[in-house]
Amino acid sequence: MPASANIPAIAQAHVSERAKKTLDLVEEFVEKECIPADATYLKQIGEGHAQRWSAHPPIIEELKTKAQKLGLWNMFLPKNHFSEGAGYSNLEYGLMAEILGKSRVASEATNNAAPDTGNMEVLAKYGNEAQKKEWLTPLLEGKIRSAFLMTEPNVASSDATNIQLNIRREGNEYVLTGQKWWSSGAGDPRCKLYLVMGKSDPHNSDPYRQQSVIIVPADTPGITIHRMMHNVRVPVSNLVLGEGRGFEIIQGRLGPGRIHHAMRAIGSAEKALEWMITRINDERKTTFGKQLSSHGVILEWLARSRIEIDAARLLVLNAAIKIDQGDARSALKEIAEAKVFVPAVTLTVIDRAIQAFGAAGISQDTPLAAMWANARTLRIVDGPDEVHLQQLAKRENKTRKDELAAKLRWQAERADQLLLANGFETKAKI
Amino acid sequence: MPASANIPAIAQAHVSERAKKTLDLVEEFVEKECIPADATYLKQIGEGHAQRWSAHPPIIEELKTKAQKLGLWNMFLPKNHFSEGAGYSNLEYGLMAEILGKSRVASEATNNAAPDTGNMEVLAKYGNEAQKKEWLTPLLEGKIRSAFLMTEPNVASSDATNIQLNIRREGNEYVLTGQKWWSSGAGDPRCKLYLVMGKSDPHNSDPYRQQSVIIVPADTPGITIHRMMHNVRVPVSNLVLGEGRGFEIIQGRLGPGRIHHAMRAIGSAEKALEWMITRINDERKTTFGKQLSSHGVILEWLARSRIEIDAARLLVLNAAIKIDQGDARSALKEIAEAKVFVPAVTLTVIDRAIQAFGAAGISQDTPLAAMWANARTLRIVDGPDEVHLQQLAKRENKTRKDELAAKLRWQAERADQLLLANGFETKAKI
Amino acid sequence: MPASANIPAIAQAHVSERAKKTLDLVEEFVEKECIPADATYLKQIGEGHAQRWSAHPPIIEELKTKAQKLGLWNMFLPKNHFSEGAGYSNLEYGLMAEILGKSRVASEATNNAAPDTGNMEVLAKYGNEAQKKEWLTPLLEGKIRSAFLMTEPNVASSDATNIQLNIRREGNEYVLTGQKWWSSGAGDPRCKLYLVMGKSDPHNSDPYRQQSVIIVPADTPGITIHRMMHNVRVPVSNLVLGEGRGFEIIQGRLGPGRIHHAMRAIGSAEKALEWMITRINDERKTTFGKQLSSHGVILEWLARSRIEIDAARLLVLNAAIKIDQGDARSALKEIAEAKVFVPAVTLTVIDRAIQAFGAAGISQDTPLAAMWANARTLRIVDGPDEVHLQQLAKRENKTRKDELAAKLRWQAERADQLLLANGFETKAKI
Amino acid sequence: MPASANIPAIAQAHVSERAKKTLDLVEEFVEKECIPADATYLKQIGEGHAQRWSAHPPIIEELKTKAQKLGLWNMFLPKNHFSEGAGYSNLEYGLMAEILGKSRVASEATNNAAPDTGNMEVLAKYGNEAQKKEWLTPLLEGKIRSAFLMTEPNVASSDATNIQLNIRREGNEYVLTGQKWWSSGAGDPRCKLYLVMGKSDPHNSDPYRQQSVIIVPADTPGITIHRMMHNVRVPVSNLVLGEGRGFEIIQGRLGPGRIHHAMRAIGSAEKALEWMITRINDERKTTFGKQLSSHGVILEWLARSRIEIDAARLLVLNAAIKIDQGDARSALKEIAEAKVFVPAVTLTVIDRAIQAFGAAGISQDTPLAAMWANARTLRIVDGPDEVHLQQLAKRENKTRKDELAAKLRWQAERADQLLLANGFETKAKI
Repeated sequence: MPASANIPAIAQAHVSERAKKTLDLVEEFVEKECIPADATYLKQIGEGHAQRWSAHPPIIEELKTKAQKLGLWNMFLPKNHFSEGAGYSNLEYGLMAEILGKSRVASEATNNAAPDTGNMEVLAKYGNEAQKKEWLTPLLEGKIRSAFLMTEPNVASSDATNIQLNIRREGNEYVLTGQKWWSSGAGDPRCKLYLVMGKSDPHNSDPYRQQSVIIVPADTPGITIHRMMHNVRVPVSNLVLGEGRGFEIIQGRLGPGRIHHAMRAIGSAEKALEWMITRINDERKTTFGKQLSSHGVILEWLARSRIEIDAARLLVLNAAIKIDQGDARSALKEIAEAKVFVPAVTLTVIDRAIQAFGAAGISQDTPLAAMWANARTLRIVDGPDEVHLQQLAKRENKTRKDELAAKLRWQAERADQLLLANGFETKAKI
Repeated sequence: MPASANIPAIAQAHVSERAKKTLDLVEEFVEKECIPADATYLKQIGEGHAQRWSAHPPIIEELKTKAQKLGLWNMFLPKNHFSEGAGYSNLEYGLMAEILGKSRVASEATNNAAPDTGNMEVLAKYGNEAQKKEWLTPLLEGKIRSAFLMTEPNVASSDATNIQLNIRREGNEYVLTGQKWWSSGAGDPRCKLYLVMGKSDPHNSDPYRQQSVIIVPADTPGITIHRMMHNVRVPVSNLVLGEGRGFEIIQGRLGPGRIHHAMRAIGSAEKALEWMITRINDERKTTFGKQLSSHGVILEWLARSRIEIDAARLLVLNAAIKIDQGDARSALKEIAEAKVFVPAVTLTVIDRAIQAFGAAGISQDTPLAAMWANARTLRIVDGPDEVHLQQLAKRENKTRKDELAAKLRWQAERADQLLLANGFETKAKI
Repeated sequence: MPASANIPAIAQAHVSERAKKTLDLVEEFVEKECIPADATYLKQIGEGHAQRWSAHPPIIEELKTKAQKLGLWNMFLPKNHFSEGAGYSNLEYGLMAEILGKSRVASEATNNAAPDTGNMEVLAKYGNEAQKKEWLTPLLEGKIRSAFLMTEPNVASSDATNIQLNIRREGNEYVLTGQKWWSSGAGDPRCKLYLVMGKSDPHNSDPYRQQSVIIVPADTPGITIHRMMHNVRVPVSNLVLGEGRGFEIIQGRLGPGRIHHAMRAIGSAEKALEWMITRINDERKTTFGKQLSSHGVILEWLARSRIEIDAARLLVLNAAIKIDQGDARSALKEIAEAKVFVPAVTLTVIDRAIQAFGAAGISQDTPLAAMWANARTLRIVDGPDEVHLQQLAKRENKTRKDELAAKLRWQAERADQLLLANGFETKAKI
Repeated sequence: MPASANIPAIAQAHVSERAKKTLDLVEEFVEKECIPADATYLKQIGEGHAQRWSAHPPIIEELKTKAQKLGLWNMFLPKNHFSEGAGYSNLEYGLMAEILGKSRVASEATNNAAPDTGNMEVLAKYGNEAQKKEWLTPLLEGKIRSAFLMTEPNVASSDATNIQLNIRREGNEYVLTGQKWWSSGAGDPRCKLYLVMGKSDPHNSDPYRQQSVIIVPADTPGITIHRMMHNVRVPVSNLVLGEGRGFEIIQGRLGPGRIHHAMRAIGSAEKALEWMITRINDERKTTFGKQLSSHGVILEWLARSRIEIDAARLLVLNAAIKIDQGDARSALKEIAEAKVFVPAVTLTVIDRAIQAFGAAGISQDTPLAAMWANARTLRIVDGPDEVHLQQLAKRENKTRKDELAAKLRWQAERADQLLLANGFETKAKI
């Protein structure tokens, strides 16, 4: 069954025919071209931490050429906000991102890879023409890569007001001083720019106006591989949007990115399930006289995985359509729900698949352990679960508490009236 | 915010303006009329098991009159299958059922209460004209109630082929002999008919052709309150649809009923959350110098409850629309997902609310304990979780295993070709 | 296998031969006399809330006579602190309490029932001779019952400093004013005294010196069944231990009581497991061609229940021996561990048994639903889980944080020295 | 507080003064010598899979010299079964193994590392004098290492009867043909012997007599790094114990080994907790104006971790003492309980610590991710959880079902007699 036939019933009306065709094409490209290329990609980037960050795997470039020919390029830029993209809604791209998430290379091969996607959104939305020409165009063409440097090693970065990197203007330059986690992509030789978040006005009484985002070319002097930025100088024209507008930028940046992460995670959960189903029907793997697929416990893992993935997908698609109908700000609740729920489900599903494989599940002979490790990061990046849960709860509580208290009080009084009118005693108050 | 404004973004396009208006009317009726009446209803049915089954609470009749005047009547009968109902889709009624589920009396007050709903569906769909006139009409008018007698005390009824009640034809009569759980509604004095499932052809080689459904008037001699049916005789004209067609009947009966149960359960989870939010902001209930709403653990309960309820609702609505687009048979997977996921979420959410209330949560001063007990039955009725999980898994496994095995094998071979072509060794096979 | 043969290996050395014999006798008494009497007891107390609190079931008195003849009486009073008891350690009585917990009537039949046990401890430890003579003696003889009134409806009683009942001295009397939950035992006609906790010095700067415990005879004027105490007057001689020493009293009272609750809960978990094992081997209850005991999922429930119960028991016994070796204060951590872990396990185990029984599991035909409801209260009474978890964590954190920080810092420095000495770079600091 | 002061109260009586002193010495050696050496060890074995298996880290040899001088050597061999060890019981060594488990190098540094420990037990228990002299002596001296080759890539090895490696006698030699997972230790250059399990009598009607264990010197021709053994020939004198006695050997081998694994895992859980406590009190890591240690959710993680670790430890120590009092066979239940419960707890505790650290938790800057990955293998090695759960359940079910059915039936009848005698109706039978 093609992917377009598997769209949840409740979402189908929201997917155009064009998007359905693209979705099926994405599926074919990922299953036939990308997933088989994953092993070669991993060999080309090599083993070991240092090695991994400096390699430039040629197979990616072959796949990028193929993807561009197929028109599978930059699907992530949503049609209602950007003219530069392929013209799909967040919900439509979400369905494609799920498929991309099944392969290590597919997102990059179609120029839909984080952190470039978020950075392209920032530049497209907030960059001036010069910045767009210099940085956005080659990013959209897949010629360079980029990084977003926000979190720092010495503070709890889950609270963005903790950021300490200092941005000081000196004449026509900004001088940056501080430390950043050397995050995803920053060490890639093709990475040509960093978007760096730091404090340009650390004493502003409004903590949400203290920060700015600056474009730092990767070859700027003063950047060391020990996560340090010391006396890094860039021209003032590299400021994005305006001083003190860093928060605004990251807020817009995070919404759709979380949908992408979540849908890719669902893709990896689906892939884990595919591997598990294949394993439990492997006729060589009988235990105690039965194939694994005859064991009730294994079947229950399969069923629960099916349910949990389907629930997770609906949460993400619901958040995506909410962004499509408004913007990320109006979908804060739905995005947070997906952000927290999806990684938990994904980890559980992959873990069950690992367990069904036994020793092979934790070996490099299956993609499962790597997928698990990747999914685990999702409970931390862009803010740990706990931060999102607390914020979600506080919003819900603040919005509803007064109305609910009044309603329950009114209902209790009315219930007492009815009790009395019918000859009963009133209820004890709690 | 009215209920119509809270419909999940992804579902909004599937709800007509008329249904939205009715939804808001349902909300007002439930919050203002039904919930305050619950306490009086409970007093009127009285305490104690025997008492509870024989009482006839007058407040219900008052509410029924009001509901009929408001046009809130028989909303459960879906418009694409029945002309007798109020003209809403399963998805639309699902949203209403959620609101009804917040009150003990609301479903009955609007003539949407189980097991009558399922029985009306059976009679409307499979009954002949005489049966409809005698039994369906007064049921639709809310003048009588009904019961469905399927499960039996001495067998594991979760496997319907285990049913043992014997149905034997003697001349113009069917003679029924066996035991049934004296299930929901059967003891109500207004209950005038039982739909009884039993074996009319116990030796048929096809186990799904052994059973029939018969209408048994409640006043037929031979029925005792000890769950026994001995020598119960009814005219052959009381057979529904045809001999050996019992399975067909119950399969059609169960799909929408599970949606109703599930949405009502979600309503009770929402109500538990309302009570919890009110409690944690109660200024008298401070612990260790803080209101409960300032405790991180409590806020996490609130957030997780919000997420889980929203995921559960999407699963049910997705199942509902799948039934709307086809029938219950085409939505087996989606219905099973909702059937298993929703009660688990509901129980968890109510349990957290209970814990937030402490002693009051397990007392009769809050509706929480009763709501929990009711939700607990949902993991058992209409088949325990485990049966649905096994069936769901077996279907998924059977449908997909061959295709997936072939795909993964092809991908592994293609991956090896690419590895060799790029100068690497092939991967170990597992 | 007798109970004495089932004592965990690690606990056996701590159980005297005399206690082992008593343990087996308790088992025989509970299994042969008490459990069969439970149904009659429930009938005798009757249905309905009001009814339940006023009945005096005669079968209890028959069992008490038998228990006294067998020497099974007051085993709860630990030998190293009290001379009035039967001479067992907390660990030894813990094993007996587990057996008692399998029956509704056994604890009371052997005069080991809460809240009398805790009240007897208080009176034995803190009461003066007159108080002992008037109240302790008949309690030890099982002639009267008692209640402990601490929690209040309008405050979060989990924080005992919130208690608001006012105790004011007027001449030779204390005057009590306030509200209390009408807690376990208080409505029993045999209940002759309440130990009431309230604030005698509400403005004392030390919140732990504000409270006192007073003996209030049940027939004192001014007590209403609506939880009110208004102008209740008792002689000053009814003060226990001294003014402002209420906290001291409840602290000593709670330790062993929590062990008793926990071990009885383990008994009910074991009983649920017994019922489940019997059910899954019931040959009439086959599903899909297999007995329940052949289903892998059911077997996994059985195995996990076995493991979790055994882990829970070890936690309680470890807490009990810690109390035996010192006192409840030195075992705060161990008691809190048992207090939180045991109810969670018990609820899970009973819930699995309910699910294995299906409809019968939630009916009154099995003891499971009642056992579940009782176990649920344990997550709330004597302080909800959350309070114990926070206190446990704060103690652990406070005690260890400085030492651990110093150790890890030293290890990191030493690790760097070794890295350098072996020709490697030092590690990044986090 | 020294480790000897932290022994659970219930276990203290089972630990000799000599063992307590050694325990404290182990703690000092591990905390001061081993943990700081872990980073250097990891650098010396290097990155990358191939590299890792061939390196010979010199720091281990330095530590071994120190450990031998301190008398910390071969503590794993239990005193009641072996004269070659250091003279401790399984329970005593268990407490030491917990400490060893905090360091990557400590077990090997004290010659208590798997799989050598199990292999030494096999050779000490079942080897003949020649085998002992050639292989056991250098193993006990820490001069060589060893591997145990049991699981195979193409079968579900969790069911040991599935093993397929063929052992055929030809004259004075055994010829081995088949595949084995290249398991822990087998690639170490110091690994000089493999104990290989295979089928010497594959058609024996008793599946537990088909297998044998053979000593294969690591330099025997025919062994390839691709997990193949083809035409590998060893002298018949390398047979251990006797043909067809392989099952007997592995059964004796697995009991204590599981205790070691479990206690080391508990050590790593304790270490994770130490890191977490240090992190949450790090003053630089405040979020939303509070240190992490002030967040209720974090405190709950700490408390639950404390409880779960303590419960897990008691389960293992109870299993250890059961082995000490009899043998592994008599402790099957207790060992299985520890085998399943401990890894689950360990993974949960480490995962919480990871989450508290955020990005650092999944980086190489903390030991947490590596500890998690190691603990994950414990749910698979020596049989996956599911196999142990099923076996545990089947044993429990088989042993108890008849007795329980009879007891419950008797109690139900007796309950009916009492009901009738007291004037009530009997209960419905289920």
